[in-house]
Amino acid sequence: MNKIKGKMVIAQGGGPTVVINQSLVGAILEARKYDEITSIYGAKYGVRGIIEEKFLDLTDVDKNELEEVAQTPSSALCSTRDKPDEEYCQNIFKVLQAHNIRYFFYIGGNDSADTCRIINEYADEEDYEMVAIHIPKTIDNDLRVTDHCPGYGSAAKFISHAFAGVNMDNRSLPGVYIAVVMGRHAGFLTASSVLAKKYKEDGPHLIYLPERTFSQEKFIEDVNNVYNKHGRCMVAVSEGIVDAEGTPIVTKFSEEVERDSHGNVQLSGKGALGDLLSKKVKSKLTHIDRVRADTFGYLQRSFLGVVSEVDAAEARRVGEKAVQFACGEVKSGSVVIVRNDQYSVDYALTDLKNVAKVTKKMSDEFIKDANYVTKEFIEYALPLIGKIPVYKKLSAPLVEEKLSY
Amino acid sequence: MNKIKGKMVIAQGGGPTVVINQSLVGAILEARKYDEITSIYGAKYGVRGIIEEKFLDLTDVDKNELEEVAQTPSSALCSTRDKPDEEYCQNIFKVLQAHNIRYFFYIGGNDSADTCRIINEYADEEDYEMVAIHIPKTIDNDLRVTDHCPGYGSAAKFISHAFAGVNMDNRSLPGVYIAVVMGRHAGFLTASSVLAKKYKEDGPHLIYLPERTFSQEKFIEDVNNVYNKHGRCMVAVSEGIVDAEGTPIVTKFSEEVERDSHGNVQLSGKGALGDLLSKKVKSKLTHIDRVRADTFGYLQRSFLGVVSEVDAAEARRVGEKAVQFACGEVKSGSVVIVRNDQYSVDYALTDLKNVAKVTKKMSDEFIKDANYVTKEFIEYALPLIGKIPVYKKLSAPLVEEKLSY
Repeated sequence: MNKIKGKMVIAQGGGPTVVINQSLVGAILEARKYDEITSIYGAKYGVRGIIEEKFLDLTDVDKNELEEVAQTPSSALCSTRDKPDEEYCQNIFKVLQAHNIRYFFYIGGNDSADTCRIINEYADEEDYEMVAIHIPKTIDNDLRVTDHCPGYGSAAKFISHAFAGVNMDNRSLPGVYIAVVMGRHAGFLTASSVLAKKYKEDGPHLIYLPERTFSQEKFIEDVNNVYNKHGRCMVAVSEGIVDAEGTPIVTKFSEEVERDSHGNVQLSGKGALGDLLSKKVKSKLTHIDRVRADTFGYLQRSFLGVVSEVDAAEARRVGEKAVQFACGEVKSGSVVIVRNDQYSVDYALTDLKNVAKVTKKMSDEFIKDANYVTKEFIEYALPLIGKIPVYKKLSAPLVEEKLSY
Repeated sequence: MNKIKGKMVIAQGGGPTVVINQSLVGAILEARKYDEITSIYGAKYGVRGIIEEKFLDLTDVDKNELEEVAQTPSSALCSTRDKPDEEYCQNIFKVLQAHNIRYFFYIGGNDSADTCRIINEYADEEDYEMVAIHIPKTIDNDLRVTDHCPGYGSAAKFISHAFAGVNMDNRSLPGVYIAVVMGRHAGFLTASSVLAKKYKEDGPHLIYLPERTFSQEKFIEDVNNVYNKHGRCMVAVSEGIVDAEGTPIVTKFSEEVERDSHGNVQLSGKGALGDLLSKKVKSKLTHIDRVRADTFGYLQRSFLGVVSEVDAAEARRVGEKAVQFACGEVKSGSVVIVRNDQYSVDYALTDLKNVAKVTKKMSDEFIKDANYVTKEFIEYALPLIGKIPVYKKLSAPLVEEKLSY
């Protein structure tokens, strides 16, 4: 295990989170402790910035400034949706060689892990001594191996606090409330809608995840049942819900379907699914006066100040650990979080191929009856969102009526 | 000025806010100091609860419990959209008499002030000694006389922090981003989108308010200009924007138009306007890749934990002041906030007719060129949202290119 001397580059890919810069700053400050890392570069706009040689020299940026950047939502180096193919990776590799970059850190999801994997293979083939480390980040919590992903806890905090507040709003002006939550294939974010729920009769009363087939008939029946029981009904629904054929429900009602460079249908940044579901409820359950739908949108991954303190600390640590693994073990891989009992975590390095490409969905033990989550899910996710503010319903004795209208 | 001895009732009307229970608890705890108030009742579901005699006896509810209720979003007593007519007010009055209620406090907007006004008139006509006090509350900030409304500061905090975060997201994955903000006739909430903006080139770049005619052609031209200059464009648009005839833009594109009991078109709780505007941009400005629209929805008035500390304190004080005015001056009226220099405020009582019915819009000095706000608006609104978290862009020297692809 020889030390490798050279520059390092770090980049951020895919959808940003509110704690992604904690990982960035953790890696930068940790790297300053190692003599073998001669300069610290940041690539602008993810891997695209490497190809275009848009590097910022972060070697000497003031620590206090970096600490403010760490608290800032969304990729400070900017991001990209580019998903590198073989040729793209070859170009990345050429630039790394040209700059004598020996350490490549990529903060991102499964695609970013795959990019690390391919580049690492080129380096092996060409006998170019380098280390490629994937630093996990996704609000969707859909990476394999790691117990959970940095970024998820804060997004789950946003969603759970949104639901806790809107629940009180819906209680005070009753009706049906539907909220569409991010998450294309994995339901972890939508499931997090329950995490700040305090009273048994509170919403969300129904949770629809992409892991289960969504039936519109069953949905209407569920809403009707809850409404008849509680006089109101709150629904959390994933933007990625699909029918029995696996077709996203949203595409069945949009005139035009927009796709991204990965061929994925655009789900976020529009209110169509919420509007559709609320229209269904209005037309089928005509005895219900008030039906409203919100789509939480980009606030879920970027809201200034709504940060889980647990998530922020862990995001920082995976950045630091990435550098420690790179310099200590001189080995490529993906940093993973390992959960201990009583909620504490350790960090480990796993092979890039274990995290690359394929994503993780919610396991069956977390899903209840296709329209709710289990206690096991709540036990799993609750420690990740940090402290929940105090809130309370007013309770007092009823006064006797004098007139009885 | 004789003291009036009897019970008091307090109710909450209209759309809830995150600090409305501060006013409730402020009034309850203050009322306990006055011997002339013999019992403290809370009416459930606003004035509807008075008619139906659904009173909670709050006289002896534990103070610590009340303090937790004060921190809870949305009307703890629940709310109503009922807008009382003469007959309705007569029924309210009968119930007040039957229970020997001599103090009526209604936390709400201009309609609630009007209810206080009518009931106060009945009492005068019938020589029934009572005091009716309106405690101001609206996220829209659209009440007359008062400098600003409790509830506005926290909603403005939500909107400004949402924009500050999404701005960083949009910077890292550039495109056009449109957010639809609450506010039927008054643009104060939409205008607040600028309040946590830090850098000159940051969004929102365009702000469309209901106080100005919205032209789709001008909108497309504005977006194009900003996009060409900054490579991205962020737009804040009020749900209440109207065309030259005063027709809400959203009704021009919805198949069905839902109206509430006041005859108002349903604006919130759907994503139609955002989707429409984003479709317009996509079809007219085809060189722009990425166009996204969010509708902030009910989170703006209910999000757990996003509270302006200034707003919370003032909401508490207007509740306390209401009781002080009622018992001290023995006079009906609406509590108003009066701004001093260097941001501090005092409280006063104004005639109910000055606040009832008619609402306030943004004044011309706050609006710039029909698509932005002035410095004067920022100076007016900035003190109301409380402390803004630190955030910072990363800046570092660019590295020289080696390959120049």
